[in-house]
Amino acid sequence: MAAISPVTIRAARRDDVGTIVMMLADDPLGGARERIEDPLPPSYYRAFEALAQDPNIQLVVAEDNGSVIGCLQLCILAGLSSQGASRALIEDVRVAGHCRSRGIGEQLVQWALAEARAKGCRLVELLTHHSRVDAQRFYKRLGFQSSHVGMTLRF
Amino acid sequence: MAAISPVTIRAARRDDVGTIVMMLADDPLGGARERIEDPLPPSYYRAFEALAQDPNIQLVVAEDNGSVIGCLQLCILAGLSSQGASRALIEDVRVAGHCRSRGIGEQLVQWALAEARAKGCRLVELLTHHSRVDAQRFYKRLGFQSSHVGMTLRF
Repeated sequence: MAAISPVTIRAARRDDVGTIVMMLADDPLGGARERIEDPLPPSYYRAFEALAQDPNIQLVVAEDNGSVIGCLQLCILAGLSSQGASRALIEDVRVAGHCRSRGIGEQLVQWALAEARAKGCRLVELLTHHSRVDAQRFYKRLGFQSSHVGMTLRF
Repeated sequence: MAAISPVTIRAARRDDVGTIVMMLADDPLGGARERIEDPLPPSYYRAFEALAQDPNIQLVVAEDNGSVIGCLQLCILAGLSSQGASRALIEDVRVAGHCRSRGIGEQLVQWALAEARAKGCRLVELLTHHSRVDAQRFYKRLGFQSSHVGMTLRF
């Protein structure tokens, strides 16, 4: 078990977008889907404005000594099932390559679990690609079950 | 292949909540999670008000000759990944027991796919329990892939 270095978890700001996109792209699956250019394509900033205005979406970053080294998006979704309890969806969890195995992903996910509880959720869900075996082991350690099939359709 | 009877797909109204909850409960997995009482627990109506106020959530029903016989919830979620394209999450797809195998679920999902495209999504995702083998076959037929593990944590 690696030592845990506590990081600050805070809402992402517009000037974090570049760093977040770099983390999303630094990945065998994400690399093919992102466009890293300088300046970054404006679609990223439009998306940031959209999610920053949505009270049910929180994009947070992990910051360590002023550097953004991780991110996570949490959506709190109203719904009728489970007696009308909201559910939480975790997306886009990333830790910068040089900062892995330091417990940063765990701090991000634990933040999300605490936030989901505080918002009255009774269920937290996420999809992780079949190939991300380490991620599945990580989430199981945090209490998740591989209970569902995650199905996707890309346009 | 069963014959398709076209149904009307429309936004759910407050007076549909009871019928929707009955459909959510009429299921080996959902039955244990819902509370069917008359009147229905107020938490269901609070959840309905919350989702009706969220511009990114659409709870729709399939109506046939004035009867509600199916439901689906679609969430359109902003996010940075995939160049800032929104993604769509489909939840709580149900068809009334006496109306199955008539293509109603397919009409609901096709509605959701068209809506997701219209909103600029490039990805549609959903979780379906491992035990729902028929559902997985159904979604594959509509173009979904079993690409991910769906992980859940219940509080």
